Amino acid sequence: MRIDIITLFPEMFENVLGHSILKIAKEKNIVQYLLFNIREHADNKRCVDDRPYGGGPGMVIKPEPVFNTIEAIEQQTDIRSKKILLTPQGCRFTQAIAKELAKEPYLMLICGHYEGFDERIRMGLDVQEISVGDFVLSGGELPAMVIIDAVVRLIPGVLGDLSSVINESFTDDLLEHPQYTRPAEYRGMKVPEVLVSGHHQKIKEWQRDHAIQRTRERRPDLFEKKP
Amino acid sequence: MRIDIITLFPEMFENVLGHSILKIAKEKNIVQYLLFNIREHADNKRCVDDRPYGGGPGMVIKPEPVFNTIEAIEQQTDIRSKKILLTPQGCRFTQAIAKELAKEPYLMLICGHYEGFDERIRMGLDVQEISVGDFVLSGGELPAMVIIDAVVRLIPGVLGDLSSVINESFTDDLLEHPQYTRPAEYRGMKVPEVLVSGHHQKIKEWQRDHAIQRTRERRPDLFEKKP
Repeated sequence: MRIDIITLFPEMFENVLGHSILKIAKEKNIVQYLLFNIREHADNKRCVDDRPYGGGPGMVIKPEPVFNTIEAIEQQTDIRSKKILLTPQGCRFTQAIAKELAKEPYLMLICGHYEGFDERIRMGLDVQEISVGDFVLSGGELPAMVIIDAVVRLIPGVLGDLSSVINESFTDDLLEHPQYTRPAEYRGMKVPEVLVSGHHQKIKEWQRDHAIQRTRERRPDLFEKKP
Repeated sequence: MRIDIITLFPEMFENVLGHSILKIAKEKNIVQYLLFNIREHADNKRCVDDRPYGGGPGMVIKPEPVFNTIEAIEQQTDIRSKKILLTPQGCRFTQAIAKELAKEPYLMLICGHYEGFDERIRMGLDVQEISVGDFVLSGGELPAMVIIDAVVRLIPGVLGDLSSVINESFTDDLLEHPQYTRPAEYRGMKVPEVLVSGHHQKIKEWQRDHAIQRTRERRPDLFEKKP
């Protein structure tokens, strides 16, 4: 997979892309990350944003630097990317969307910053708008990193043991059951006996029961949606 | 505000904390970020995680390195932090939670990685569990950055023009209206006439109407919750 990141702050990505799973995916040549600075493609590099029409606080990213950046990229390749605009007005990112995006050969993530994008960026580009949640951030950079992490780890070959993906929260609409590791007792808190029993069937039942119980207690909304 | 970050990957944070609003907040001496590596406080630095009891894929973070890290920090200060555990099983992060956290003098964000935390970390520490959304990430580092960004920008004095916070998406349970900036026409797409009319009352009505319309179309769930 090729992932292009369109941003005013490419340096923000370096450390995140250079660690853990995202680094491994790159080293295995499964994913390629390319960073593009919107500012470098602006007609006037000092002016990528301007005050909103109709007044109001903050600055809005102008259409021309974003269109220019994307056209410069598209001139160099024949493959058309799936374009994602990070915005609080988009549809909410979920594990199901991550799975769909993990099938794409080429993603382009377009990050706004400050007060947002000029509306004509939405209108003039064929983009899917995605939001990572109902909160306000300084820009689309952190949401882009979140999407990259969620997607890349689902691409076959990235994680050594694929079953660790399958067992995780949300993949079957349940939260994950409690996990314990060594020592068997820590500060008086013991690992539940069934987990050290070696009785595989009972362990599976305990894990399933606790996943259901936890989901019902903490996320009744998820639990009710379950088929 | 003091923000302590407990993680196995402190380097992942450097570039994000060093840019944009988070950098400004630090330069204004409004926020102080401190990074603590869980590994440095482990009894055996090579062993911070282990296989889960009961079997299953992945590695689980052991209780002792996390307890040790937090106790080492707490020995150095009398103020007690508000502790947040980043986990997909937590309550969902929203703008309302960001506002509450922005009032705290001292936040501690505890990031897991890999398969998750040993359950006794939840049980033995007085933590609030927060999730940024229904998707699976490699660790709590990106969610911690998301929370820091959402919270820090709400602290008085961080953003110069406070009204830009007030007008944004979710602060009044509505998505933001479309924004336009110069030029007035770009590739045949024009800024709506009302926004260049100078008629303040009509502009306000247009903005309100479009915020309502957009919320109703894109997020009926938000719209129905509105009082």
